Amino acid sequence: MKLLEDFFVGQQFVLALYTVDEQAIIDFATAFDPQPFHTLSDHPRTHALGGLMASGWHTTAIFMRLAVDAYMSDAAIFTSPGVDNVRWLAPVRAGDTVEGCVTITSARASASKPDRGIVQADARLWNQDAVAVLSLSTTAFIATREGFKEAFWSGSY
Amino acid sequence: MKLLEDFFVGQQFVLALYTVDEQAIIDFATAFDPQPFHTLSDHPRTHALGGLMASGWHTTAIFMRLAVDAYMSDAAIFTSPGVDNVRWLAPVRAGDTVEGCVTITSARASASKPDRGIVQADARLWNQDAVAVLSLSTTAFIATREGFKEAFWSGSY
Repeated sequence: MKLLEDFFVGQQFVLALYTVDEQAIIDFATAFDPQPFHTLSDHPRTHALGGLMASGWHTTAIFMRLAVDAYMSDAAIFTSPGVDNVRWLAPVRAGDTVEGCVTITSARASASKPDRGIVQADARLWNQDAVAVLSLSTTAFIATREGFKEAFWSGSY
Repeated sequence: MKLLEDFFVGQQFVLALYTVDEQAIIDFATAFDPQPFHTLSDHPRTHALGGLMASGWHTTAIFMRLAVDAYMSDAAIFTSPGVDNVRWLAPVRAGDTVEGCVTITSARASASKPDRGIVQADARLWNQDAVAVLSLSTTAFIATREGFKEAFWSGSY
């Protein structure tokens, strides 16, 4: 498991390719973002916007899946307090294949809790034409070497 | 349709109740955030964190659904450039019922594009115990009275 001590500024994690199909765009948006340009490929507003586009929240969810697969699933993450500067830079369309990169911008011990540290990163997704579609800044609490022993298996947090 | 001119600072939109069931938490996280505390109710890390919790991205998606239902579906929204200051303030658990409020913090004309304005808002969700679970700041481009005629039905944007 990756602990705080395994992260450093400038470290990069490459995110895998992810192809977004039309039905997935429609299903996600039907549940969570039922605006016509996300759910109806033949609506005037959809045509006006150049075609069906994924909900921005679908794009951020895809980013999360790629980040979990790339490095988070084997990092000793407590939780995340939030994210900042989420920018939907260009539409994600049906059939697009996105990929991306996460760059660590800060990795430091917590001043108040010795069992954990704070890891921040800038993330970016782009499409098959190298057009950036998403950027955001993430923050996660990750166990220190000291904290890992106590926290992750003892139920103390 | 609500246009830029219909939004004002301090205006509030009440978000409806939304109950989050366990299977929905697991399904969302299996697709987009497969960490054990989101997908496995009997994993040691899940127990350590007090039980299964919704992915933060599931919580933001639920916020979006409630916002669309409350006011966005009848607003002349072009698109959103992004969101800021997303904070997952407390876990959302299986069986929790969340509700929320959106408060408009800014509604102004675009300096460069007369067909639209910029509407910003602070949003908050809380659970049945009045514990805040999510806050974020949203930004959307919304048609002006002038822009609505040209843009929404002519395909010019």
